[in-house]
Amino acid sequence: MKRLLGIDLGGTTAKFAILTLEGEIQQKWSIKTDVTNDGKNIIPNIIESILQNLNVYGLSSNDVLGIGMGSPGAVDSKKGTVIGAYNLGWKTMQPVKDQIEAATGLPFFIDNDANVAALGERWKGAGEGEDNVIFVTLGTGVGGGVIVEGNLIHGAGAAGELGHINVDPNGYLCTCGNRGCLETVASATGVVRLALDFSKSDSEESEIKRLVDDGKEVTAKIVFDLAKQGDPLALKVVDQFSIYLGVACANMASILNPESIVIGGGVSAAGEILRENVEKYFLQYAFPPVKTSTKLKLAQLGNDAGVIGAAWLVKANYI
Amino acid sequence: MKRLLGIDLGGTTAKFAILTLEGEIQQKWSIKTDVTNDGKNIIPNIIESILQNLNVYGLSSNDVLGIGMGSPGAVDSKKGTVIGAYNLGWKTMQPVKDQIEAATGLPFFIDNDANVAALGERWKGAGEGEDNVIFVTLGTGVGGGVIVEGNLIHGAGAAGELGHINVDPNGYLCTCGNRGCLETVASATGVVRLALDFSKSDSEESEIKRLVDDGKEVTAKIVFDLAKQGDPLALKVVDQFSIYLGVACANMASILNPESIVIGGGVSAAGEILRENVEKYFLQYAFPPVKTSTKLKLAQLGNDAGVIGAAWLVKANYI
Repeated sequence: MKRLLGIDLGGTTAKFAILTLEGEIQQKWSIKTDVTNDGKNIIPNIIESILQNLNVYGLSSNDVLGIGMGSPGAVDSKKGTVIGAYNLGWKTMQPVKDQIEAATGLPFFIDNDANVAALGERWKGAGEGEDNVIFVTLGTGVGGGVIVEGNLIHGAGAAGELGHINVDPNGYLCTCGNRGCLETVASATGVVRLALDFSKSDSEESEIKRLVDDGKEVTAKIVFDLAKQGDPLALKVVDQFSIYLGVACANMASILNPESIVIGGGVSAAGEILRENVEKYFLQYAFPPVKTSTKLKLAQLGNDAGVIGAAWLVKANYI
Repeated sequence: MKRLLGIDLGGTTAKFAILTLEGEIQQKWSIKTDVTNDGKNIIPNIIESILQNLNVYGLSSNDVLGIGMGSPGAVDSKKGTVIGAYNLGWKTMQPVKDQIEAATGLPFFIDNDANVAALGERWKGAGEGEDNVIFVTLGTGVGGGVIVEGNLIHGAGAAGELGHINVDPNGYLCTCGNRGCLETVASATGVVRLALDFSKSDSEESEIKRLVDDGKEVTAKIVFDLAKQGDPLALKVVDQFSIYLGVACANMASILNPESIVIGGGVSAAGEILRENVEKYFLQYAFPPVKTSTKLKLAQLGNDAGVIGAAWLVKANYI
């Protein structure tokens, strides 16, 4: 029986998994990402690790259908190249597909990391078995992937930039240069930004205010944890965050009416308190037939979404 | 050579066209839509007109590949039924496909009218030759159609409800029951609503204000015509309209990055003044790579978009 090899390349580690054709993970391992020297060692290290581990698990290249990878940066999935992945040190064009295919003799497929996580959640996670799934990942930034009738959407190349949906034309300045992008208020740093702003203007008793006044660190996790405990300022921050994300989800749903919008990434670890608050505003602003046909769900695969989705990139080419 | 038969069914008239397989219109005609008796005569009248006109033009059913139709209401394109088309008098389920196929012996295909117009503009209009096109129609309401990799998107059934994208969570009440839908400010009635509201709060000299004070009618056409002449209040209305539509277009583009967003419908007859004002805010709020890869265009086919797109529904099933 053939296996799939999925790789989730990140700025800190590259995660690997060997999976069955049904998407069950059989083996997992990871290596550190060496971002020195403009990331020149990253691909050689990945190749070495693949060959070594196939050997360890008693597999030859005949046992593997192909290799899939999710990568940060601007990925050209047709050419198999990556450019502008600054957290890897990759400023110039990297011929990832050519390098890995030449060294392993296996077919190689690559896409943007958020797109690949979307494929993972759609294959084996919260969107399993559904044709149309939107995945929103709330991490350091906000990213996403859009799956329509089972296929990842690229449009003219940059589809799925869900973090740059505008939620407030007069809002905060975003790293992209625009004002009021979803990322400025719904990422981990965005939640903290809202908390700091609210604690300046709000006079109510609040643990967040105390932390700020004491010069202590406030994180998105602390904000959601305090909201669960009923802290009034934390609840206001969660409410404002939920209006922004709820309206953005309602708008995605009115445009595409997917069966699921799946919310993942580090911020989503807050869990049901996040989902139900976002759903409240989603239900207020989505087009009525969409309120019942599009469901808001939390991601289920955590860190495995990347390697599972990467494996799907391979499988999708053989079905 | 086989022909295509396209029908654009509306509340006032049903438009018909016979087209070549390349989408050239060879014959056009129309009949009045009889909305009396819950619209019971609509389909019999359409059937009679098809048979009569094929005869007039010396065509038998052997010369026609199939019939396509765009219809108002909630269309089930798989079953070929329509429900809730209130401007036709159709409250209950209408088995349109069954009736027309039984009477003509020709294969029949149907979709929502805005979706069909989108297909028309993508085949022979402003989006010709492009894989990914979003069509926004600004009429009495605001509708739309989303084409991804050449295919119309339905999602769970209600995709393309672009008029119900939220542009202001505290905005005007929409007929759908939500607040702040694009339709409340970018439809023909929406533009008038903005004009009336601005004329209440604005003290500047303005022809719109004079019309309102004299109890005369203000239309979207008058607002755009006065804006072209430099009327200060009309310019403010056009600016506010353009912020709403420009941000909505930017958001659609950040999600799907189509090659074109095509703006059609009666309000778009205002022309370049509308397009360039909407583009101004589109360029301010779209994700940077999207600003250059997604173009904002005016629709080109006018009233023919419907019959041409309806003919495409047939052709799409044979390519």
